[in-house]
Amino acid sequence: MAQSPILDTDDDARSLARRLIDTARHGALGVRDPETGHPLVSRVAVATDAAGMPVSLVSDLSHHTQALAVDPACSLLLGEPGARGDPLTHPRITLIATARFLRHGEPGHAELAARYLDRQPKAKLYLGFADFSFLRYDVTRALLNGGFGKAYDLGPDDLALRNPSGSSG
Amino acid sequence: MAQSPILDTDDDARSLARRLIDTARHGALGVRDPETGHPLVSRVAVATDAAGMPVSLVSDLSHHTQALAVDPACSLLLGEPGARGDPLTHPRITLIATARFLRHGEPGHAELAARYLDRQPKAKLYLGFADFSFLRYDVTRALLNGGFGKAYDLGPDDLALRNPSGSSG
Repeated sequence: MAQSPILDTDDDARSLARRLIDTARHGALGVRDPETGHPLVSRVAVATDAAGMPVSLVSDLSHHTQALAVDPACSLLLGEPGARGDPLTHPRITLIATARFLRHGEPGHAELAARYLDRQPKAKLYLGFADFSFLRYDVTRALLNGGFGKAYDLGPDDLALRNPSGSSG
Repeated sequence: MAQSPILDTDDDARSLARRLIDTARHGALGVRDPETGHPLVSRVAVATDAAGMPVSLVSDLSHHTQALAVDPACSLLLGEPGARGDPLTHPRITLIATARFLRHGEPGHAELAARYLDRQPKAKLYLGFADFSFLRYDVTRALLNGGFGKAYDLGPDDLALRNPSGSSG
């Protein structure tokens, strides 16, 4: 098998990762079917929480929600190609994560809901429904692909906000 | 848990599934990491073969190719939201499949390469490289989501071309 072409992580790679997370409005969520263990990929809407990490608003009726309630191992692909050109030249990031639900009435739900609606205003039609919950992603690793020959293997620290609001760091 | 809102499959659903497959230029491929079993989702370019089923051109260097060489269970999400509106109102389809490689020199590779380049012309830059192979998907089931309240559970027959070229059927 050919050698793995992973580059050393630098600040350009970290900035690209942040940009992909910050600008994502949707992503592809991979889970394991709880009955068969088979991979299942489906669309989720995405915004970020105050720490800059992705969150989704999901329905209890969906396959991914039912799967994650049993088995929280998941992966989230962010970064959409445009309509033109080679789709593989567009940057994208694969987050490897464990999902965690945040339900109505739990601490932080109201704050996250306000932030989420700012980014996904049409979600106000259903955000209040009892069967919709937030999904947070505890990311353990991220595979960044900036286009051919530009692959990076990132850790959670590489994804941290560089300039959190109110901080000089 | 709430009741599953799966509708009866009709010809409109089958046509929508075909349209999503026919027009896809890329998709999100879910595999299981061969070491950890964790879901991994990554971008693949997509075209169709003569039977109208999706094919991707993948590099041996990529995580998904290395995973599928060990464990061919996979899922492919097709159907991209536009830049506007609620991403969850846009139709998409989750294919549940087993991957099969078609490598340089194997029967059918040359024909598929010609067809693929017609759809993905920029792939001519690397299609000839020894470490690039086609990935075919033997689809066992498909979860179609035409937007809120429009979920269908399709079998392989529902995805078949309705009017294959040269046939009256």
